[in-house]
Amino acid sequence: MAVLLSDKPKYIDVLSDSTGETAEKVVRAALLQFPEAGVQIRLHTRVRTQEVARPVLERAAKEGALVVFTVVSPELREFVYGLTADLQVEAIDIIGSLIGRLGTFLDREPINLPSAMLPLTEEYFRRIEAVEFAVKSDDGKEPRNFKKADVVLIGVSRTSKTPLSTLLAQRGLKIANQPLVLGVPPPIELLDAPQDRVVALTIGLEQLCEIRQARLRQLGMPPETNYAMREHVRQELEYANSIFRAHPEWPVVDVTGRAIEETAVIILEHMKERDERAKAARAGLR
Amino acid sequence: MAVLLSDKPKYIDVLSDSTGETAEKVVRAALLQFPEAGVQIRLHTRVRTQEVARPVLERAAKEGALVVFTVVSPELREFVYGLTADLQVEAIDIIGSLIGRLGTFLDREPINLPSAMLPLTEEYFRRIEAVEFAVKSDDGKEPRNFKKADVVLIGVSRTSKTPLSTLLAQRGLKIANQPLVLGVPPPIELLDAPQDRVVALTIGLEQLCEIRQARLRQLGMPPETNYAMREHVRQELEYANSIFRAHPEWPVVDVTGRAIEETAVIILEHMKERDERAKAARAGLR
Repeated sequence: MAVLLSDKPKYIDVLSDSTGETAEKVVRAALLQFPEAGVQIRLHTRVRTQEVARPVLERAAKEGALVVFTVVSPELREFVYGLTADLQVEAIDIIGSLIGRLGTFLDREPINLPSAMLPLTEEYFRRIEAVEFAVKSDDGKEPRNFKKADVVLIGVSRTSKTPLSTLLAQRGLKIANQPLVLGVPPPIELLDAPQDRVVALTIGLEQLCEIRQARLRQLGMPPETNYAMREHVRQELEYANSIFRAHPEWPVVDVTGRAIEETAVIILEHMKERDERAKAARAGLR
Repeated sequence: MAVLLSDKPKYIDVLSDSTGETAEKVVRAALLQFPEAGVQIRLHTRVRTQEVARPVLERAAKEGALVVFTVVSPELREFVYGLTADLQVEAIDIIGSLIGRLGTFLDREPINLPSAMLPLTEEYFRRIEAVEFAVKSDDGKEPRNFKKADVVLIGVSRTSKTPLSTLLAQRGLKIANQPLVLGVPPPIELLDAPQDRVVALTIGLEQLCEIRQARLRQLGMPPETNYAMREHVRQELEYANSIFRAHPEWPVVDVTGRAIEETAVIILEHMKERDERAKAARAGLR
């Protein structure tokens, strides 16, 4: 019986008065600490009235679900606190106490409006534009954009250039990327671009061979013999590395075994150092 | 003097043993409730030892900064709690109590490893693949991909198709998009694709005229006369709407005045309803 009970699906109801992105992100981050817990997240977005919140909380009570919520309206927040207490549902407030403590820290009153109801900011439009720039400048399609980019990523095929570009673009950075192909010289626009904006990506031979074999299978193409694949990949990596050595001013980031999110942070750290060096150099000139 | 003091920049130090994405997202979401508070976020990523954490916390104490942290190691978390208490720094733990309460809810022990050190999951690779699919299938470049897509977005230029595609792709969904242009029939592949996967985007005439004028200025092109622009845009929207009317099975989502994040949630809600209808239909057939 105990086994049957523990096999019952566990639910987390994420309730938000906006898109629920923040709450879901926090819950998913915390759940990474419990691999294979087999818990299901149910997302309830744009919940802005007691009438909409009530049935979600009542079902959570019936099914023994955990409730995680981000609600900025103090009235609705009080309602969620009160009803979950009455129903004996465990409820976790992700943003309420943070807003309260920020109010004290900033010595201001919060405006208490769901973020989806706030006017769109300049920063928002910059992010949108950056995403469009990244998509248009993917895969070396617009070398003319290199000189307008904040970062130009270069590397052989399957070094995560595309997902890195869109991820960094969501921070408002203009990203272009250029694949390096064995024996093909990079476009002249790469050398015309500000050289301190170029970031080189590299990857271990073993992992790259694995990824490319998997890619061939996925595309329904016959796998190459291991030897042929390996030799070609080795030469292509060596070709890329020889280009990187000729440009020691380009930071080289190794993506082997790293999640996109981590590589993105390493690139941001490089950009921060670069900006600090530039600042120090300007100060030295004074 | 009081004015001078309140003009001092306020800092929030976000400290994470991983990429800091989660903590930063929560802080930015909370800060939306304090517009123009002029606070600066300093991100400290991959902080995994006391030696790295200490100087960050000491500077926060000196500068009166607020510390917000996500640290999964119980030892390092204790250290941050202890040192910030000693230094009288206000510190907010975003994920610690959530992990504790999830442990109780799931009746499991957390593994206490920073997420960046965990093995990459299948879901992670699916997301990467979806982003690559979206970038390749942007702007009607690969109509052959319509039948492989989870959602095909269609709409006239400037209805947020590109940023919506990459945002939804980050949830692991395969998204293609097709622009509608006045007088040009949509590609035949659109009608061959599963029709319950097509989502039509529309937008108000006023907002679209504004966005397109801004776009022309940005591209350094001469603005069209308001009348010519307006008349062309009106005809194009009418053309798109006539196509939508001919396909009443496509949900039409109005993006006017909506942030990408909100439109994405509305599309996800449509997909959920569609899946529930399909499920109910299958159950009815039994």
